[in-house]
Amino acid sequence: MKKKLGVVNCLYPMPTVLVGATVNGKPNFITIAHVGIVTINAISISSHKDHYTNAGIKANGTFSINIPAEELVKGNRLLRPGERPGQGQGIPVRNVLGVLKTAPMIAGCPICMEVKLLHALDFKTHELFVGEIVETYADESVLTSGVVELQQGQADAVRHAQPAVLALGAPFAKCWEIGKSLKV
Amino acid sequence: MKKKLGVVNCLYPMPTVLVGATVNGKPNFITIAHVGIVTINAISISSHKDHYTNAGIKANGTFSINIPAEELVKGNRLLRPGERPGQGQGIPVRNVLGVLKTAPMIAGCPICMEVKLLHALDFKTHELFVGEIVETYADESVLTSGVVELQQGQADAVRHAQPAVLALGAPFAKCWEIGKSLKV
Repeated sequence: MKKKLGVVNCLYPMPTVLVGATVNGKPNFITIAHVGIVTINAISISSHKDHYTNAGIKANGTFSINIPAEELVKGNRLLRPGERPGQGQGIPVRNVLGVLKTAPMIAGCPICMEVKLLHALDFKTHELFVGEIVETYADESVLTSGVVELQQGQADAVRHAQPAVLALGAPFAKCWEIGKSLKV
Repeated sequence: MKKKLGVVNCLYPMPTVLVGATVNGKPNFITIAHVGIVTINAISISSHKDHYTNAGIKANGTFSINIPAEELVKGNRLLRPGERPGQGQGIPVRNVLGVLKTAPMIAGCPICMEVKLLHALDFKTHELFVGEIVETYADESVLTSGVVELQQGQADAVRHAQPAVLALGAPFAKCWEIGKSLKV
């Protein structure tokens, strides 16, 4: 028998990412935990309307998504100050530009994606930005035969309700294969 | 120096969920790996246009999201056949209805959410369904003092590029707290 909890968003585990944008001509970064996959080449982030970063995403129609490794979580959590201009200084963020020119990326993250804005949806508290990935960059450390293959310890998974960052564990099954024995 | 990979969606780790809908008057379930958090009470799933389930979501404006435990992954992977009518039979899915009446849930999943459709966005291959959570249900096994707190081994995290299902590891940091020592 399940317990009714009211309205609780329990979509876990989810990654936390760093989002980059150009705001008033300057690179700006923010930590975003509200993310989603839309299609094989489309992705979403949802950012509170108070966040300084949103204006840049809308003005340029571009942003970046940077996946921090477990060791970067300290910096990751710190990037909340990126919400406001002039803050977030002193953070070890070495930013690089790719093909879009207004989607600054973080060199210290093992995976970076440049994204072109397709849709901005308005919610009461947040704006949902859905974009198309135009280029993906990865460190050799997360590649196996040229394919991204995050290993145990190479990414974080966040459990929000009681806010903790959990490590990525060991592989225990192959997608699409594991259920075949049950097929009727 | 990063390697350019072209367009690769590397938003990991992400959960895989089971989505329930009523299609032509019957409960229907499908495995969905393209999911997202939109706001504290809104959520998104993206489903290929070929999927049988989509018609039910649009007709009733409702769906459910069910989070499988690690032990359910076998069943989870199997639910791909739910894409078509008449398939998915024989799967140990005991469905229950909540307040929405057309969003069947899976009793065997530790967390279930009933969702009311807010937006349906059209993409080339997929439909993005954004909805508002109206009620959340959880097993005692995932609750700590009444709050959902997934533990190591209680959920899966999928790494798509080289498709493997990874376990959820141990907590190693507290959200929002861990970066404070770096604050400038």
